Amino acid sequence: MTQIGPGRPRLEPRRRAGQTPRAEILDAAAELFTAKGYGSTSTRGIADAVGIRQASLYHHFASKDDILDALLAETITGPLELAERLAGASAPAAVRLYALAWFDVSQLCASRWNLGALYLLPELRSERFAVFRERRDELRRHYERLAAAVAGAAGNSVPGVELLPFRLVESVINMRSDEGASPEYAEHLIPDAILRLLGWQGDLEQTRSAAVELAEPGA
Amino acid sequence: MTQIGPGRPRLEPRRRAGQTPRAEILDAAAELFTAKGYGSTSTRGIADAVGIRQASLYHHFASKDDILDALLAETITGPLELAERLAGASAPAAVRLYALAWFDVSQLCASRWNLGALYLLPELRSERFAVFRERRDELRRHYERLAAAVAGAAGNSVPGVELLPFRLVESVINMRSDEGASPEYAEHLIPDAILRLLGWQGDLEQTRSAAVELAEPGA
Repeated sequence: MTQIGPGRPRLEPRRRAGQTPRAEILDAAAELFTAKGYGSTSTRGIADAVGIRQASLYHHFASKDDILDALLAETITGPLELAERLAGASAPAAVRLYALAWFDVSQLCASRWNLGALYLLPELRSERFAVFRERRDELRRHYERLAAAVAGAAGNSVPGVELLPFRLVESVINMRSDEGASPEYAEHLIPDAILRLLGWQGDLEQTRSAAVELAEPGA
Repeated sequence: MTQIGPGRPRLEPRRRAGQTPRAEILDAAAELFTAKGYGSTSTRGIADAVGIRQASLYHHFASKDDILDALLAETITGPLELAERLAGASAPAAVRLYALAWFDVSQLCASRWNLGALYLLPELRSERFAVFRERRDELRRHYERLAAAVAGAAGNSVPGVELLPFRLVESVINMRSDEGASPEYAEHLIPDAILRLLGWQGDLEQTRSAAVELAEPGA
């Protein structure tokens, strides 16, 4: 019998993907939140799906909100770290914006569950999720700054156009929901479209490969 | 005392906006679904918010799903009717696509509650909402056909680019959710950006006014 938490035996053999009980709880919760709905999922239901006691779940997470917060953080941490690194990079703004959009779309596609579908939950407007909201706003502002630089360099002065790249990136969440599968074609389609709608006219092939290289960890 | 339904007296004076009990129920449900969450709202809670008995609510709607279905239908009916009319119109594809996007963004902004935030609910994947899903898919295909015509005329052969206009239109739902208010600036920003990302290079001022005229009912 697998031991989890503070010496509590599992009710059943391990059922979920995940290296640790914490990862298994997150995986089960992500499935239930995206397949059944956040409001309709209980911590009891999550514990059952993992095959552990509810008390063991509470050893890892104090509440359902804490589980949701951890899942949402996963969707933001990678792109936000990249955006911060790109803010100090010397590559042209178009390459940096492409790198960020490409990385973000790829990870929204690659995650096992479509967690971005939870961004519109009314529950996220509460104080409990203020830190998540602030981090997502920070990411959005990174997009807007890079987009404004690209539009400016292209002589595009349409007010508000810098707001759209972030929205196009997040639309991959809706594609994935409607299509029932990750839209792999979006990985380049969306960053390409972002540069085009900003009025950018450079060499797309070159920008793509420079961007993908720049987005690599340790680049 | 206002009479509602089959001779049932109201518990309290009328509380909600709406000309009919049905409209009041829809308004209350829309507020609760978007503010508290669908899974966390009960028909009892909706009846309380209207100030009627739960039994009176069931005279108008057999279930909570029926209320959601009626609300979702409201978000689709207008744009779908327009799209069907535009499919047979003789105006250039760019004008027709602009008209559809302008009308759709405007109505997503003008509705009292941000009902589009409900599109990602997992509940919508059930058989109960198959008709709504089919109608939304139909609207999406209208966008894709018009966008393909615009891209084709502009010599833009990027595969998949015709998928993006519908996504940009629906991103107004996320803007509204994040900003806590309807982004009125999106009414032209989004249709403008749609034509630009398709590679269209015509006269924007002219297209805008032709499109708004075309979208008028009875045009």
